[in-house]
Amino acid sequence: MNTPAGLMSGDELEQTLRAVGDARYHIHHPFHKMMNAGELTKAQMQAWALNRYCYQAVIPKKDAIILSRSEDPEFRREWRKRIVDHDGEDGSGGGIERWLHLADGLGLDRDMVISRKKALPATRFAVGAYVDLVSSSSLLVAVASSLTEMFSGAAISERVPAMLQRYDYITEDILAYFTPRLHQAPRDAEFALAMVKQWADTPEKQQAAIDALVTKCDILWAQLDALYSAYVVPGHIPPGAFVPPDAFVQKGT
Amino acid sequence: MNTPAGLMSGDELEQTLRAVGDARYHIHHPFHKMMNAGELTKAQMQAWALNRYCYQAVIPKKDAIILSRSEDPEFRREWRKRIVDHDGEDGSGGGIERWLHLADGLGLDRDMVISRKKALPATRFAVGAYVDLVSSSSLLVAVASSLTEMFSGAAISERVPAMLQRYDYITEDILAYFTPRLHQAPRDAEFALAMVKQWADTPEKQQAAIDALVTKCDILWAQLDALYSAYVVPGHIPPGAFVPPDAFVQKGT
Repeated sequence: MNTPAGLMSGDELEQTLRAVGDARYHIHHPFHKMMNAGELTKAQMQAWALNRYCYQAVIPKKDAIILSRSEDPEFRREWRKRIVDHDGEDGSGGGIERWLHLADGLGLDRDMVISRKKALPATRFAVGAYVDLVSSSSLLVAVASSLTEMFSGAAISERVPAMLQRYDYITEDILAYFTPRLHQAPRDAEFALAMVKQWADTPEKQQAAIDALVTKCDILWAQLDALYSAYVVPGHIPPGAFVPPDAFVQKGT
Repeated sequence: MNTPAGLMSGDELEQTLRAVGDARYHIHHPFHKMMNAGELTKAQMQAWALNRYCYQAVIPKKDAIILSRSEDPEFRREWRKRIVDHDGEDGSGGGIERWLHLADGLGLDRDMVISRKKALPATRFAVGAYVDLVSSSSLLVAVASSLTEMFSGAAISERVPAMLQRYDYITEDILAYFTPRLHQAPRDAEFALAMVKQWADTPEKQQAAIDALVTKCDILWAQLDALYSAYVVPGHIPPGAFVPPDAFVQKGT
């Protein structure tokens, strides 16, 4: 039953989605706060870059799944930009290449990063849950799960200057990944939000969109939980996962 | 190339699989050791029961997927026992019902447990990875991923007396789940191991079976990592997850 009381206006839906981000976006996670406060060791920074690569690497694949599920060429043309952004074009690398450049800059072995074999299992499981979500849910839910990008601009604007200021070994060149994201993410989020507002025309669909954003926030949060558990709590690196070089385990190195 | 040097004998393969368990089975996880040592608060015990329900609840579903992928009625007859064990028969509950009885005994609300809404996202992601593994891999890999049961008998034999001795509120009745597992798990593991030995007739297949067991160990380990991160490290419960009653947060209560 689509009662008028149950159906939010587009603006109300947007406010509700923004409230989800205020409460659950991973910028509020202790690991993220440590990063911005300059409190991570280089070992922890390496673990972050290595694990987040798993997430970065799957983004164009999940966007291709979304592309494959749409009947609308106009939607597909717009969504396709995301794949171009991450995979790059002939002669110029995209977001994945820039993430590898970040990992290089932190002293990680590129082949090890790409193999993902040393990533935390919990990272791989969370990333797998993201692929599963966009594969098995409605297109509305798949698109709504991308709406964490509504909050990433603010996160990047805070993170990049904080990292440059507080870690000697971090340079603008190493953080080149984030520069194009400052205009790509808002552009992508604006389009996705417009689609979600348009498609979520019943209270049930609106709730499904909100739930999708909650689940996506959980997916990002769980990745930082795994990093905290393995690399901040002493002695808790799971069997087989990346063990940072001793020299990088001291704070400030 | 199936070189004689690369292909292990059945006994060698079994020894290699057992070595995986020795190194990676979750009985070696700090949370598990705390449980057996009597160091968990009732709050932590509740969180364990609540989250592990997610795993228990999916077992017959993953076994049904395995059933659906076999061409062999004899294999399916044998594997079907697992579903009967977990789902029960008319008039008698199975493993899932006994797990809910354990959760009841710890004072958890049954509807909340069944809904899984308060479980840790990382638990759900790990369980989802298990379903994905048995769905998308070879039948050999799906069956090999069950081989953690080779190690569960020893774990239960250690856990049950330790829990009865060290926690006042734990009774034999509450732990009734574990009693039938003491004969079911070895029976199931013996059959699965025989199948894996028979089917893994190339070095590549043997390695795939070993890798499957490693991944399954990772799936179990990640669930205890998530519990440790959320309920042992202070102040780290993820947004939306189960918050234990204050009265149960003190050790020994």
